[in-house]
Amino acid sequence: MSGAFLFPQTPTGRSSLIPPPPWHYSGEMITVEYRTDPNRVAELLPEGATLTAEDPGAVALIWADWQSTGDDFEEVLDPVRGQYKECFAVIRCEWRGETWSRCPFIWVDKDFALVRGYHQGYPKKLGDIWMTRPITVGRAGPRLEEGGRFGATLSANGRRVAEARLTLTHRVDSPGFVNAHPMLHNRYWPAIESDGSASMDELVTMRGYDGEIADVWAGDAELQLFEMPFEELSLLEPQEMIGGYYHRVGVSWKGGTTLESH
Amino acid sequence: MSGAFLFPQTPTGRSSLIPPPPWHYSGEMITVEYRTDPNRVAELLPEGATLTAEDPGAVALIWADWQSTGDDFEEVLDPVRGQYKECFAVIRCEWRGETWSRCPFIWVDKDFALVRGYHQGYPKKLGDIWMTRPITVGRAGPRLEEGGRFGATLSANGRRVAEARLTLTHRVDSPGFVNAHPMLHNRYWPAIESDGSASMDELVTMRGYDGEIADVWAGDAELQLFEMPFEELSLLEPQEMIGGYYHRVGVSWKGGTTLESH
Amino acid sequence: MSGAFLFPQTPTGRSSLIPPPPWHYSGEMITVEYRTDPNRVAELLPEGATLTAEDPGAVALIWADWQSTGDDFEEVLDPVRGQYKECFAVIRCEWRGETWSRCPFIWVDKDFALVRGYHQGYPKKLGDIWMTRPITVGRAGPRLEEGGRFGATLSANGRRVAEARLTLTHRVDSPGFVNAHPMLHNRYWPAIESDGSASMDELVTMRGYDGEIADVWAGDAELQLFEMPFEELSLLEPQEMIGGYYHRVGVSWKGGTTLESH
Amino acid sequence: MSGAFLFPQTPTGRSSLIPPPPWHYSGEMITVEYRTDPNRVAELLPEGATLTAEDPGAVALIWADWQSTGDDFEEVLDPVRGQYKECFAVIRCEWRGETWSRCPFIWVDKDFALVRGYHQGYPKKLGDIWMTRPITVGRAGPRLEEGGRFGATLSANGRRVAEARLTLTHRVDSPGFVNAHPMLHNRYWPAIESDGSASMDELVTMRGYDGEIADVWAGDAELQLFEMPFEELSLLEPQEMIGGYYHRVGVSWKGGTTLESH
Repeated sequence: MSGAFLFPQTPTGRSSLIPPPPWHYSGEMITVEYRTDPNRVAELLPEGATLTAEDPGAVALIWADWQSTGDDFEEVLDPVRGQYKECFAVIRCEWRGETWSRCPFIWVDKDFALVRGYHQGYPKKLGDIWMTRPITVGRAGPRLEEGGRFGATLSANGRRVAEARLTLTHRVDSPGFVNAHPMLHNRYWPAIESDGSASMDELVTMRGYDGEIADVWAGDAELQLFEMPFEELSLLEPQEMIGGYYHRVGVSWKGGTTLESH
Repeated sequence: MSGAFLFPQTPTGRSSLIPPPPWHYSGEMITVEYRTDPNRVAELLPEGATLTAEDPGAVALIWADWQSTGDDFEEVLDPVRGQYKECFAVIRCEWRGETWSRCPFIWVDKDFALVRGYHQGYPKKLGDIWMTRPITVGRAGPRLEEGGRFGATLSANGRRVAEARLTLTHRVDSPGFVNAHPMLHNRYWPAIESDGSASMDELVTMRGYDGEIADVWAGDAELQLFEMPFEELSLLEPQEMIGGYYHRVGVSWKGGTTLESH
Repeated sequence: MSGAFLFPQTPTGRSSLIPPPPWHYSGEMITVEYRTDPNRVAELLPEGATLTAEDPGAVALIWADWQSTGDDFEEVLDPVRGQYKECFAVIRCEWRGETWSRCPFIWVDKDFALVRGYHQGYPKKLGDIWMTRPITVGRAGPRLEEGGRFGATLSANGRRVAEARLTLTHRVDSPGFVNAHPMLHNRYWPAIESDGSASMDELVTMRGYDGEIADVWAGDAELQLFEMPFEELSLLEPQEMIGGYYHRVGVSWKGGTTLESH
Repeated sequence: MSGAFLFPQTPTGRSSLIPPPPWHYSGEMITVEYRTDPNRVAELLPEGATLTAEDPGAVALIWADWQSTGDDFEEVLDPVRGQYKECFAVIRCEWRGETWSRCPFIWVDKDFALVRGYHQGYPKKLGDIWMTRPITVGRAGPRLEEGGRFGATLSANGRRVAEARLTLTHRVDSPGFVNAHPMLHNRYWPAIESDGSASMDELVTMRGYDGEIADVWAGDAELQLFEMPFEELSLLEPQEMIGGYYHRVGVSWKGGTTLESH
């Protein structure tokens, strides 16, 4: 056995699914913000948390195309182990007098991203995620300029879960307000007895450090969520669009804080 | 929030990555048993466990092609959600006067199988797994008869990790001895503080129930393990072959037992 | 350059995407036969062909899970290169006084199968194909017996294209009548000038040899086809179900016949 | 039947695997140029072509990450149908007194790219291709500046075929000289009789139009090619490195010219 950060445990630690933090991320995001029925948001909050007073039904659905790496930057040179795409929903809540962001649904396309998410409290599944990239030469994509058009899609198990389109209108300073607070996440694993008891049942918070954003554009967004037998993103059905955003982001992560442990 | 078995948590529980046990499995296995340096086995044991007195360097490398389902049998009708392939290594140890099997390395090709494994204590990663199936008509495969030839391969992140070949020789009653004991697994998640402390650090045991096997054949096996920068199956390098097996298996699983919690 | 059967051409021929025929196949099939609007069938026939007098709107939608190999049987031992799944539609027509089967739509999940299909005149695309397998031990699947239930699905580019369910009722001798004739296929590649002229424009026929079937069961089938922006299987919308079948099949293939070359 | 550009043929043409040209491409490339044994190059030339007098053993191995679209730009908004990655080798030759580029080996990761390549004469297979992207924010990748480090990998059927690393040194005007000429390609499909005769056997040439490049950097490159039973890129074994390049590229394509048809 070893001091590896995660399993599989070996004497060298080289097998660990993920290296020890800090982890570094650089990527691009397409964000769609909209309002859903606040009751749907309330049902996805942790015990004791309540809806925000202002804009309680606000949701952000975010697509991201990432490069990521541990602190030895090895994944940068073997990109199959560092690049991944994800799509995730963010809602907000009040808890102990503060406002938090929370991720109730999220899909990624690599195992290391899935498990890194479990460490951080994200309820990740595997999915197929695609998003248009801006270009600077040629004609096969949008420029970062007024009228630039982007598409973003999410599928799971061969079914389309979500589709968005974004048409850029103007530069802005910030890519939305829903994913802007410290995260309030549950970390939960049932006991192997599988009798309803838990081996780990925590409320945690986390956020990145050294965050940077660039090339932030706002635009007009369209969004479709599809009903499926085993995915429930469509619980957060759009009732009114707020807006859409493209931006680039860099951020690092080295740990979070356990708020409650049951 | 909800009484879902696992995340994502929703009021209906339908989003849960895995349904509550019992889980049912039916599949085919190709097993290669061999001896490695017992020191390599010892390094992969949990604290307090020791090598078995008899055949301490014995290893089983097992490929499996599964159908699996929860107790409502829904996955049987949507097979993308129930079929998966896996490849895993099994070693043995002594602990508290008993003999146990233990899985130090395992790869699967679906998210539900990955996470079901985390619940059971298997250190799963994603991989690409392929194994020959026996046939009864045509010429594109082996029959279950003397001379039938099978291949099995494992890749991870686009690199070949392991390759086996099996030529059937005769029917037998049992597909090897290494994977025959209750499992002794660690269940481990670091605290989100990422400071070396653990949120869950358990030693558990589990085994299936209602196990059935059929069509068990023994044969001559060849095995190659490849060195890779971030996979260490090759630590368990073959020094001497014991044998190879094909068999079909059905089993159910409803829970395990926590032996120690630190 | 070389005498390789197909590109890439090298002195050894080892790089060829597919080996020279004969090719051997062993697999399992789930077949759903139904009636659609005969006008939809007529629109998918080659020039000069007409609807069959009897049951002109009959369609078979067939899922298959294959092992395949060239004549040196190398793929049997490296199954990533021989196993594939497919889903294809079959219609019938009259041409020059005979009855033919014809495949207007087909999806597979490997490159060698795609290109082998182009050689034979199948208009293949990549897709994700899943189908339930019958079992003999355990509970995670159907037995080949009355009441055994199977599911089969097809997705392309992350969208569900088709879903079928089959409940076995009784043994039969033959798995349907639509896919029972010699195939009448077009082989077509435009000229690189891309001006509407063709470099290859053939009407061909082919069928396998040494065909064997086993374990043929009939049953009750349900089928759903979904509308998509860039797939048109739903043109062949079901109006009336004929029946469903499970069977095993073995067959070899060594060539076809060019009927017309324009 | 229809006037679709390619199969599957339907009245609407919507099912066609690829839309009619023009096709537009925007992407990023990592190029490694090196010298191999000129005899290995000679063996991969079309009949009648000879080695170039100058630098006859020069090879470019190129990774590309593309967005592509037909002339209605629909794929830009459904990026699963337009984005793909590829890795291809380029060599040069003399034929009829002119110098040509030629692609003997190429891998892509989508079906539309595979088949578009067949139309253009590229001998495409499916592969897994990964390449580092330059970043402008955060730490998870290289900047386009001196010392920026990139990795690029190619796998096929779960085996690593090639790996490259590039460290940027300085801006340049042009990303190498090997892939700079009109392409000289064979387009070849055997007759369905599979008797050694061909249905299409052409020598063609093509090149893009409206080509633009940007952000061209030169650097130091390392390259490893791995021996495999069914891939032969390693025939073009590196003997001496020439250099490496990163650049962005935009280009359109609307057709080529048939030089010979046998």
